[in-house]
Amino acid sequence: MSLPLGFRYSAAYAGLRKVKRNDLGLIWSDKPATAAAVFTTNVVKAAPVLAAQANLLAAGGRVQAVLVNAGNANCATRTGDRVVKETTSALSKALKVPAKLIFPASTGVIGVEMKGDLVVKAIPELVASASESRFDEVVLAIMTTDIVPKSVAAGLELKGGVVRIAGMTKGSGMIHPNMATTLAFVMTDAQIAPGDLQPILKRAVDQSFHRISVDGDTSTNDCVLVMANGASGVTVTKKELKAFEEALTVVLQSLAKQIARDGEGAKKLVTIDIYGAKNNPDAARIARTIANSPLVKTAVAGADPNWGRIICAAGYSGVQFDPRAVDISFQGTAVCKKGLAVDFDEAALIEKLKESEISIAFQLRGEGSGTATFWTCDLTEGYIEINGSYRT
Amino acid sequence: MSLPLGFRYSAAYAGLRKVKRNDLGLIWSDKPATAAAVFTTNVVKAAPVLAAQANLLAAGGRVQAVLVNAGNANCATRTGDRVVKETTSALSKALKVPAKLIFPASTGVIGVEMKGDLVVKAIPELVASASESRFDEVVLAIMTTDIVPKSVAAGLELKGGVVRIAGMTKGSGMIHPNMATTLAFVMTDAQIAPGDLQPILKRAVDQSFHRISVDGDTSTNDCVLVMANGASGVTVTKKELKAFEEALTVVLQSLAKQIARDGEGAKKLVTIDIYGAKNNPDAARIARTIANSPLVKTAVAGADPNWGRIICAAGYSGVQFDPRAVDISFQGTAVCKKGLAVDFDEAALIEKLKESEISIAFQLRGEGSGTATFWTCDLTEGYIEINGSYRT
Repeated sequence: MSLPLGFRYSAAYAGLRKVKRNDLGLIWSDKPATAAAVFTTNVVKAAPVLAAQANLLAAGGRVQAVLVNAGNANCATRTGDRVVKETTSALSKALKVPAKLIFPASTGVIGVEMKGDLVVKAIPELVASASESRFDEVVLAIMTTDIVPKSVAAGLELKGGVVRIAGMTKGSGMIHPNMATTLAFVMTDAQIAPGDLQPILKRAVDQSFHRISVDGDTSTNDCVLVMANGASGVTVTKKELKAFEEALTVVLQSLAKQIARDGEGAKKLVTIDIYGAKNNPDAARIARTIANSPLVKTAVAGADPNWGRIICAAGYSGVQFDPRAVDISFQGTAVCKKGLAVDFDEAALIEKLKESEISIAFQLRGEGSGTATFWTCDLTEGYIEINGSYRT
Repeated sequence: MSLPLGFRYSAAYAGLRKVKRNDLGLIWSDKPATAAAVFTTNVVKAAPVLAAQANLLAAGGRVQAVLVNAGNANCATRTGDRVVKETTSALSKALKVPAKLIFPASTGVIGVEMKGDLVVKAIPELVASASESRFDEVVLAIMTTDIVPKSVAAGLELKGGVVRIAGMTKGSGMIHPNMATTLAFVMTDAQIAPGDLQPILKRAVDQSFHRISVDGDTSTNDCVLVMANGASGVTVTKKELKAFEEALTVVLQSLAKQIARDGEGAKKLVTIDIYGAKNNPDAARIARTIANSPLVKTAVAGADPNWGRIICAAGYSGVQFDPRAVDISFQGTAVCKKGLAVDFDEAALIEKLKESEISIAFQLRGEGSGTATFWTCDLTEGYIEINGSYRT
């Protein structure tokens, strides 16, 4: 899969991390890109978030370069705004790009003054070394507690030709509430109208980043940015918006699932499907509650088909339902019907639960046709010593 | 501290646990006691919960005996109601007490049929061995994932004389959402009118069990029961209701704090005080969100005064506030003023954070006078390897 045309990337070590590992990344479009972003809803917002929002507004929804750092969130500090100004101005000069087209983003510790001069010093190298092939280096530079780098690329055939979409993200899906910052940058060489991109992104985020177990606990720095620079020369027509949205959703779901899978010690990606709820929001509430339950997650880690923990979690989701109208299955094997245990081959199911992709289906009967899919990870380590061995 | 008069206790091994450890408990009042109870709000309720609610109603708020078991929650099973009937009937006959005065309670695995006959078989021994001094054996019998037994006793001087209050509980305060069942039984030899006890219990639970980090994630079996058998001969007069409520609140807070402290691997009890919120419910929301944050809890475990995690958690609590009007202190040492870092003796504070009782104060300015206190525990083990060492 080839990367979107017209984007350059680079990474450098500015010195914000204590260990010598790249902590600065640049994503640079040859020309201003149509951009849309979704930001944290935390009332405490880091300085780069506020600046990025202001820039996006001032530039009428366009971005030409992303300046991202790890090692410091630049949040709840005296010098936050000044540091953003100082660093984005330096990049603006180096790139000869208006400052309002720079999108700043940070992740790391909160409440510690960020040394902007270290970033400014690293910018010449960052700009000089930018190339179309250094995508993966930015992916590595933005990692903090992540264990694995997270990226994806996809192509989409439109009437005018092929467009490419590539995305990278950071974050870890350990546990609710996880405040590890989520940053995601998605680049595409499609041409799309600014007014079309924002609603598409919002819906795609609702079906992806809002469907993993970190949802609802937004850090001070979270953001998801999409840049569409049109370098493919292919325009997404009004008729093709739906197909583009689907492709973007697949890309964001891939990134979100990579976060969900990357919990500390996690070995399994868990997909939770809810069927038959009164409506989709109810289904999502049930799914989120199950996805956030440590006891469900430890049961998965221990390959224990302990469906009692699932029905219990659903029971405190806040959604009203009849416990006697619940069917539950693991890996396609029914374990609970009408709220009661059913006979199943336990040894065979335990084997299936040792796989790295786990599926949990929760079906309500007689409520409606609401559905939702959520992703989370298993919970291993210390917890399992108590919780995972509780049933058996 | 002496126990309330007129109660007998006993424990036995019925065989519900796989390991041979007592799994059955009896609390038996010489005469019917005025009773009040607060039950789980989970839509999935175990059979003993439904039976206890029905019995309380049928008996006009009176209870004479509690039959409690560990090892099986008797929830989401085909035979649940029948097992409750069978076991409480057997106890009713053995004690010569009407069945509606028996309060059943269970904790353990969900969705596995409970063998009622094992309980029935153990009842003769349970009744025969009941004595005023076997209180602690019931405390041990109801433990499941608990590491330490949890009980408390208190005395209250009223006009008519001294009354005694003693309580026991089980549950573990590890993490949100924790579905480990909370059971609490409080006995007093005070005489109190049935209509007075229920509202007092409700308010006392709001200030205790609803103030630890397991709150909101109620299991299928949770309940808190108070029995007042009047054996002291001392009546709580209308004027003394407030004093009685305060004493009961202290008892329940002690039990709740014991749960909060008893997290897996937890070494510290964390008290979170919120001041200056718009109102008390806002203060409670902020406190609960901080108490439930694994990143705050790992920081406490690592003796790391990482207040950024506290302001971030408060920021996603759903309460609106100005981040620039926040003061935070650990162990009485100010670490954040007006949303910004302040200088403090870090080495000295780290030493203080190694103590077993940790205090976090979160003060808003200019909002109002809402306050709340919550209790939680630190989070050690595997998580700390990633989260606890992140800042330093």
